[in-house]
Amino acid sequence: MEVSRREVIKLGAFGAAAISAGIATDVAEAANKKEPRAVLKISSQEGIIPGKDLPEKLAKMEKWDFDGIEVGGRGLENRVPEIQAALKNSKIKLSAICAGFQGALMSDQESERKKCVESMKVILTAAGELGSTGLIFVPAFNGQTKLNHIEGRKILLDQLPELCEFAQKAGTRMLLEPLNRHETWYVRQLADAAAICRDANHPAACVMGDFYHMYIEEPSDMGAFISAGKYIHHVHLASIKRNLPGQDERNYTDGFKGLKMIGYQDFCSFECGCIGDREVEIPKSVKFLREQWKKA
Amino acid sequence: MEVSRREVIKLGAFGAAAISAGIATDVAEAANKKEPRAVLKISSQEGIIPGKDLPEKLAKMEKWDFDGIEVGGRGLENRVPEIQAALKNSKIKLSAICAGFQGALMSDQESERKKCVESMKVILTAAGELGSTGLIFVPAFNGQTKLNHIEGRKILLDQLPELCEFAQKAGTRMLLEPLNRHETWYVRQLADAAAICRDANHPAACVMGDFYHMYIEEPSDMGAFISAGKYIHHVHLASIKRNLPGQDERNYTDGFKGLKMIGYQDFCSFECGCIGDREVEIPKSVKFLREQWKKA
Repeated sequence: MEVSRREVIKLGAFGAAAISAGIATDVAEAANKKEPRAVLKISSQEGIIPGKDLPEKLAKMEKWDFDGIEVGGRGLENRVPEIQAALKNSKIKLSAICAGFQGALMSDQESERKKCVESMKVILTAAGELGSTGLIFVPAFNGQTKLNHIEGRKILLDQLPELCEFAQKAGTRMLLEPLNRHETWYVRQLADAAAICRDANHPAACVMGDFYHMYIEEPSDMGAFISAGKYIHHVHLASIKRNLPGQDERNYTDGFKGLKMIGYQDFCSFECGCIGDREVEIPKSVKFLREQWKKA
Repeated sequence: MEVSRREVIKLGAFGAAAISAGIATDVAEAANKKEPRAVLKISSQEGIIPGKDLPEKLAKMEKWDFDGIEVGGRGLENRVPEIQAALKNSKIKLSAICAGFQGALMSDQESERKKCVESMKVILTAAGELGSTGLIFVPAFNGQTKLNHIEGRKILLDQLPELCEFAQKAGTRMLLEPLNRHETWYVRQLADAAAICRDANHPAACVMGDFYHMYIEEPSDMGAFISAGKYIHHVHLASIKRNLPGQDERNYTDGFKGLKMIGYQDFCSFECGCIGDREVEIPKSVKFLREQWKKA
């Protein structure tokens, strides 16, 4: 789906001429007064990067033109000093925290929901201390609940206000991740995740998108990111077969166009496997993604 | 959500200057080579237009700058000669056919599904004879099925190939309409409806969008229409309170931008009430919509 020429033409001759001369004009500003210029900040999950410890991984990531690192939530409360110390000597920032809690918010069992809320709070506190963009969560994987979509959505919305308030006070966010149908039928598309956040009506109720799941579930990457709009604060990067971007024919430009249109400011982070030598393939993938961003 | 200035800038100085001069260039064409220029063709459901019979309604619609008329599916097979005769003397074209079948495709009762398929086929035949863009259908209203989302989606997809093949042979389409949660929980968003059509993988498996339902369910009108993309072949127009566009604060420009970006070619049709004198308010609404389209 290409952006129409009409979208350009609406600026009129003055705007177009002014832009062609590289001048920021009232006309050009008016076309985008709400959204800052989007940025591509590339991150990776910690486990994907080779290295004997976090400082070694961070050093490689700096060399390979990364901007952020995503870590797992399990036991994060015990790693805060280690991670803080390593980040202090690096240009790399902490991006999102990937799950690591127990239970499921959409479980039909009260004990599982309670376990989930309590373990999430521990991770959210650590996430806030580390300046993370948010805690990634899936409301329920297939098999984790007996509730139907309507009941599940309601019980999720019953719990989000408390968790979002806790997250905001900790200085971070809740990031609802839609997955593909083989992993969950409950929230599969960004527009639906964003609608849940709109219903939750809390600034820390946010979403993320994953190019791997999106390939299966979204009819349009661009449409999905535009629908996610102000709610999206993290992106996962992976190819069709869930390897490094560039390792199969997955195209990222349509999605990146969507991110540019919403003025996206957060991280895009590897969650994928790697075919071949990581020392060679990872920096190649970063370069590929920067080219895709330019083309978008 | 505004379209970013970056989307303009990517065309570069040459493209921008060429566009400002009104010249269709390779650069400009490349930005939109897939999509034709979108059009706003305004239609209305027959019942909304005052008049003692169809010819009188069509005459008013021509005068009021309409392009199309949408009729109900119930008993359509008996109205084909009447409608054909009236359209012959008018510039107005037939847009979509609104429902009118029995049962529900997503019913848990085989007899209800069968009744639905059989009655849809009768309407699809008449729709094809009249050159209609498609038959609007809702898979199940709340209360029409005991199936959950996963079972309901599967049974819908089991029946769509046969119906779409029938529709295509008749010269028309199946138009799946997402509704808001108060009417149905099963398909609420355009991205989900489009994903069902993608799974059905038949050219006559298509969707429509309704600005009234979209206001409740879609976080972004533009994102929704971009996600609907090539699958969307009809749009319903109504305000927040389901009156004529312009009769409350509902804004259509974000959605119209989305329709422009996908090169939308089909009708946008009134399905709404009217506050005040129809003879005054309907033409006023048409004018309002043409202005919104220009602004988009």
